[in-house]
Amino acid sequence: MELMEGIYTRRSIRHFEESPVMEADLIEVVKAGTWAPSGLNNQPWRFVIVTDPDMQERLAEMTKYGRTIREAPVCICVFLDHDAVYNETKDHQAVGACIQNMLLAAHGLGLGAVWLGEILKNAVKIRTLMALAESLELMAVVALGHPSGPPRNPNRMDITEVIVKRI
Amino acid sequence: MELMEGIYTRRSIRHFEESPVMEADLIEVVKAGTWAPSGLNNQPWRFVIVTDPDMQERLAEMTKYGRTIREAPVCICVFLDHDAVYNETKDHQAVGACIQNMLLAAHGLGLGAVWLGEILKNAVKIRTLMALAESLELMAVVALGHPSGPPRNPNRMDITEVIVKRI
Repeated sequence: MELMEGIYTRRSIRHFEESPVMEADLIEVVKAGTWAPSGLNNQPWRFVIVTDPDMQERLAEMTKYGRTIREAPVCICVFLDHDAVYNETKDHQAVGACIQNMLLAAHGLGLGAVWLGEILKNAVKIRTLMALAESLELMAVVALGHPSGPPRNPNRMDITEVIVKRI
Repeated sequence: MELMEGIYTRRSIRHFEESPVMEADLIEVVKAGTWAPSGLNNQPWRFVIVTDPDMQERLAEMTKYGRTIREAPVCICVFLDHDAVYNETKDHQAVGACIQNMLLAAHGLGLGAVWLGEILKNAVKIRTLMALAESLELMAVVALGHPSGPPRNPNRMDITEVIVKRI
């Protein structure tokens, strides 16, 4: 897939087929995430990969978008490592860049993915459930799989609305 | 350029030739940014495009990476619009995703770019200097141009170091 085409045709995929994601593709998606830039190259992102149906059910119960988590053959939980943090705002941005790379890579590999944020209301519960270090803060869950059905076609503001000034 | 190749070969470009960036390419970079996902599709990003040498000099004086700003034929200042914000962490992540799309698009178009964050220490001064609404908070400056010389080749942690658990 061509880079610009990938950027413009990526959509949030919320429904998945039952077929699993190949291990090589899963690792490729995470690896693509790690090639995002970060301030001082601190690479503050960490990942927990969830394929266990019981754990996915527990996660699903923690968000109103549980159906997507139940359908996805794999969920990649993205964490910020506070032991690596140097500036909260910039580290949150870096994690966003990392997730965007993951979503684009999924799309480029013929998979579908959606970035779930509503579940962050239960970030502490999820860290405890997964028995993770206190330094890890949940930033997002990326549900990943083979797309089932067409995605929504969201709009965007016109470019003239978002460029507020030229100097 | 192929999507995965683009993700893996993008580098921060800090030195630029004098040749200007074509208007179509500049708009393409910003437009690619706007196709990032955002929570509730709130699209909280706003842009100020700077090509005026005097304004670039003023910006350059506000960061220790001023040389890059002086060399770049164009700087895209990325702002968060607090009138559009719904959750600071998630909006910072969305802006990060937007910037990553911009950096990838620049790379795909044969341009080079670097994400400058150190300048945020002067975010309020810059907003005042540009006579922008108080709702706009500077999130980053993206310096853009035709690459001059090879980039640094930064390392990344091994994938086994960032995947902390599989469940």
